[in-house]
Amino acid sequence: MAYDLWYWPGIPGRGEFVRLALEARGIPYRDRAQAGGVEAIVADLRLPRATPPFAPPYLVAEDLVIGQTANILLFLGERHGLAPSDLAGRLWVHQLQLTIADAVAEAHDVHHPVDNGAYYEEQGAEALRAARAFREARIPKYLGYFEDVLAARGDWLAGPRWTYADISLFQLVEGLRHAFPKRMRRVAPDCPRVMALHRRVADLPELETYLASDRRLPFGEGIFRHYPELDAA
Amino acid sequence: MAYDLWYWPGIPGRGEFVRLALEARGIPYRDRAQAGGVEAIVADLRLPRATPPFAPPYLVAEDLVIGQTANILLFLGERHGLAPSDLAGRLWVHQLQLTIADAVAEAHDVHHPVDNGAYYEEQGAEALRAARAFREARIPKYLGYFEDVLAARGDWLAGPRWTYADISLFQLVEGLRHAFPKRMRRVAPDCPRVMALHRRVADLPELETYLASDRRLPFGEGIFRHYPELDAA
Repeated sequence: MAYDLWYWPGIPGRGEFVRLALEARGIPYRDRAQAGGVEAIVADLRLPRATPPFAPPYLVAEDLVIGQTANILLFLGERHGLAPSDLAGRLWVHQLQLTIADAVAEAHDVHHPVDNGAYYEEQGAEALRAARAFREARIPKYLGYFEDVLAARGDWLAGPRWTYADISLFQLVEGLRHAFPKRMRRVAPDCPRVMALHRRVADLPELETYLASDRRLPFGEGIFRHYPELDAA
Repeated sequence: MAYDLWYWPGIPGRGEFVRLALEARGIPYRDRAQAGGVEAIVADLRLPRATPPFAPPYLVAEDLVIGQTANILLFLGERHGLAPSDLAGRLWVHQLQLTIADAVAEAHDVHHPVDNGAYYEEQGAEALRAARAFREARIPKYLGYFEDVLAARGDWLAGPRWTYADISLFQLVEGLRHAFPKRMRRVAPDCPRVMALHRRVADLPELETYLASDRRLPFGEGIFRHYPELDAA
């Protein structure tokens, strides 16, 4: 039976990390709120459930309702071979995913540094400061970490083939390049292995159809946003 | 063999979520940087490793080096019965933990909203705004979520006995009460089940010795900080 993926319609956001893993592995799923719209997901979120999600994305898999992006990927990784099956490999890939999740949250907070419930325009001054720190300290720190991992390990983060963490790192780079194109051009030469991994995932035959399809949503008003005033080399 | 826990010395921080789980289950461990100081952990972080942590805390368990708080708890939960062993229960407890981790990160960002590398005093104005949004919107949202879960489930978040997520929710409440005492007094009547869980964990016989010991570090310059100007009812 196909899984049901629920995420806010119209933006890639955190849902895209799940979507990419499902697509890369050819796992059947229904993208419920892309089809049904905001009304559908709001109604679904109101259903009483034994394991209610705090927020989208969540995956309904038969009788399981699984929330938290990294937790969904943990589940998919175990069930569909998107991660090593041994304990050490499983924990390592999850550790990488949680670090990517931290970077994603920080990328979001750049444009919403003081009030998640207010518009960007209401916190533009604070965002200018947050963006500078994120560009100058955090992007190099995160990408430098993954660069070091790849320098020690080779083509992929966790072994001879890609895992959900590699797919997610691709999407993190995609998002950062969208939001901070000047900074990413400046940083790219310092993390050639990360950029090569990004290309390697983009070229995966498993993702070719999806990435060329209109199911692959463009960045917009989600986590990764391009405000020119927040970017600089 | 005892595990080695590595976390910044002198503050409870994210390390405390691991420490509490170890203590509650009576799992032998060495708190390496509490003993060896900052020099010891800085030196340890420089060691070349197959699975390097991005940041403390990390746990060294024989040949495993496990980073990310929630990932360490996933490991301890599976190996030491700190979570259900069935798939649904295991994922549910991890989902709860990741939601707690999100709340912890937001609590930190209140006093460091725009630059993690600068002092609080350099971002006090931004912190005032961030604190207001956190107090008024985020604390009720998070605690309301856990209140609803407990209303549906009973004494504990995931079944007939406590799991690492219950222990972590206790610590989240501890931290919020330290950082935002006025706000937490105001909010407590709206989440009686969360407050009762907090007391239930505080009264666990398994934690009695630890919580009364000087190993239980007071809050200070870590994630949960009490700045009177950031608190209000």
